[in-house]
Amino acid sequence: MKDVENISSMMAELGQRARAAAKVLATAPAEAKTRALNAAADALWAARAEVIAENAKDLEFGRDKGLSDAMMDRLMLDEARIQGICDGLRSVAGQDDPVGAVMAEWDRPSGLHIQRVRTPLGVIGVIYESRPNVTADAGALCLKAGNAVILRGGSESFHSSRAIHAALAAGLREAGLPEDAVQLVPTRDRAAVSEMLTMTDYIDVIVPRGGKGLVGLVQREARVPVFAHLEGIVHVYVDAAADADKAMRVVMNAKTRRTGICGAAECLLIHRDQLAGLGTEIVKALLAAGVEVRGDAAIQEIEGVVPATDADWGTEFLDSIIAARVVDDLDEAITYISDHHSQHTDCIITEDDGAAAEFFARLDSAILMRNASTQFADGGEFGMGAEIGIATGKMHARGPVGAEQLTSFKYLVVGDGAIRK
Amino acid sequence: MKDVENISSMMAELGQRARAAAKVLATAPAEAKTRALNAAADALWAARAEVIAENAKDLEFGRDKGLSDAMMDRLMLDEARIQGICDGLRSVAGQDDPVGAVMAEWDRPSGLHIQRVRTPLGVIGVIYESRPNVTADAGALCLKAGNAVILRGGSESFHSSRAIHAALAAGLREAGLPEDAVQLVPTRDRAAVSEMLTMTDYIDVIVPRGGKGLVGLVQREARVPVFAHLEGIVHVYVDAAADADKAMRVVMNAKTRRTGICGAAECLLIHRDQLAGLGTEIVKALLAAGVEVRGDAAIQEIEGVVPATDADWGTEFLDSIIAARVVDDLDEAITYISDHHSQHTDCIITEDDGAAAEFFARLDSAILMRNASTQFADGGEFGMGAEIGIATGKMHARGPVGAEQLTSFKYLVVGDGAIRK
Repeated sequence: MKDVENISSMMAELGQRARAAAKVLATAPAEAKTRALNAAADALWAARAEVIAENAKDLEFGRDKGLSDAMMDRLMLDEARIQGICDGLRSVAGQDDPVGAVMAEWDRPSGLHIQRVRTPLGVIGVIYESRPNVTADAGALCLKAGNAVILRGGSESFHSSRAIHAALAAGLREAGLPEDAVQLVPTRDRAAVSEMLTMTDYIDVIVPRGGKGLVGLVQREARVPVFAHLEGIVHVYVDAAADADKAMRVVMNAKTRRTGICGAAECLLIHRDQLAGLGTEIVKALLAAGVEVRGDAAIQEIEGVVPATDADWGTEFLDSIIAARVVDDLDEAITYISDHHSQHTDCIITEDDGAAAEFFARLDSAILMRNASTQFADGGEFGMGAEIGIATGKMHARGPVGAEQLTSFKYLVVGDGAIRK
Repeated sequence: MKDVENISSMMAELGQRARAAAKVLATAPAEAKTRALNAAADALWAARAEVIAENAKDLEFGRDKGLSDAMMDRLMLDEARIQGICDGLRSVAGQDDPVGAVMAEWDRPSGLHIQRVRTPLGVIGVIYESRPNVTADAGALCLKAGNAVILRGGSESFHSSRAIHAALAAGLREAGLPEDAVQLVPTRDRAAVSEMLTMTDYIDVIVPRGGKGLVGLVQREARVPVFAHLEGIVHVYVDAAADADKAMRVVMNAKTRRTGICGAAECLLIHRDQLAGLGTEIVKALLAAGVEVRGDAAIQEIEGVVPATDADWGTEFLDSIIAARVVDDLDEAITYISDHHSQHTDCIITEDDGAAAEFFARLDSAILMRNASTQFADGGEFGMGAEIGIATGKMHARGPVGAEQLTSFKYLVVGDGAIRK
């Protein structure tokens, strides 16, 4: 009880500081933010040896905790990865500043001139898990958009995140911006997460990046608005009118390029007319590439396919596994996907413009693709520089969330003594 | 307990029907929606005698309940007002359909073509109070944007809203669209409101339109995302560099044109240098127009001004009352407004471009005005056709909420077999 009270007052203090910093950030010149990000990259690179030493503590903690190889790999930092984080900071620094951009302007018969102008959201809370680079990416994007941010990294990356955060703080100091613009929650206690989810006075929006446990906690407890980031339960549908070569290339890339990212394909739907030829070839190619194919009754006929269970449909494997089933037509494909996807990314392979249009119209995924790998579901690939994640909700931000999506807007209305009749 | 259970299952049924209707609406042709709205206007006009008869029941209920004259006036429908509602329906019908509009599109070096396209939000819940016309306005805007809507009107306008809703239903039938696209909660029981606020499976966003009681309930109970509509605690600041004529015109219009709307001025700030001349003239003009001026110590010196109490600062009077105080400079004005406004609409009267720029930059109201009456805070005056309200939150929708603000978007990505490196 005592601890929770302490955490509550500690978080409130972080919140107050973030609010104060947000006021300064909201009107900070673009140059100051750019300078802070470039200086942070310099500071991080200069401190790479210390960062790697801090990261070693996290790796040891992870080993003791028995983390999987995949998780240990996500956690690990070396010079090349730190170089990548520095490049990311410089890339965000180099983007256009979204704050103050005029989104639209028009005149009214009343004599008013109206502008719709981008403004920061205020204070953003980012809750994430093991990858330490999110500390830099999320911190940089929030700062670019003129927001203060409270970062709550996973307990596994505690020391690494602290070391990266120190570089961000150094950058802010060098640019004369308040250090409180980017704060890192200084405890591993999970009570801090619950606190963030209900700090409506101090946090304007929560960006949760993590697995089912975190998503569930957010859905139960959040009082602060949330940019939902659900899993990527990504479907690829090979239509009756699919081109064989495109289908093979796209499915293989969508599943096997990297299996652990949210844009990786998790379920393959094959039109019944394609099953005997192209469909079988694709399944065989997946098996040959070492992918475990969990099929429905029809696909189980192909040698090497294992039977799918109910739990395999609508599941994010994030592994070298794919569920596969046959559908009778486009309508069945769309209905099935509607019932099983997470509104993240879904794809149709077809040469039929009508089928593509129907797929695009009837599904309401954040990203819909035609004849392109779902692994393109990424802010960088969309040309947004960096991303804080792929939002799957429908409110405010959707799809890849870059600096521009971390803003709000206001109307500036100018008259010359105009009064309303 | 029994009643609450019944309401819970009744609301769930409404929700299921709304979800089903939303699926149809999402891909309904623009012409069908236009036709439904025009047909609803025809049906409403044809039924005007019945609507007025139903309204009479509400007026009787209101009299028994002892509603104020202002509230009785808001509730009352006559032919002219019904004509106004019909005009509103036709005006929304005539607007461009937002669904499917391409907001942006671009090509990527990977060969992808990316489009950002408007989509409906899904199911919208609108909770409002006494004005029966909101039934038509909100229903029409939600429909235009391809959303299903669940309307929960105030108990005072129960019969009037039912009669207006019947006309909307007739319009939907005539256009071959599902009647469940616009549903009206068929009970006065307030438990239905609590139910709506937590129906995350069936409602995508809540638009609350009402006073402090409703706002508080929403803040405590809502699990569904909310487009915050706080009160309009609207400030007008007469700067040192104000033009006397513009200041007089704008302040008088902002306060007295209509006192019961959310854009009406509630607090007047006068720069100390203006107090002796222009400031005193404005206060005298307000008094002469029958406005009660509640002043700070300096303004109390003017004859007829009554002393303001602490409760008068940051208060929405919605009446012929204004709080008034003197500030030493622009900085004090901005700080005071930041601490007391509701981020709705605030105005500066000045000829000084620097002062206006600082006012615009440092305040984060949804609408900021210069030398223009705050009574222009209105979707119609902004050129948006109609509005469901003026949102004061920072997420998704802000300022006047028209059909366009009731949409989300998705990305449509087309390749030609593109795979990610």
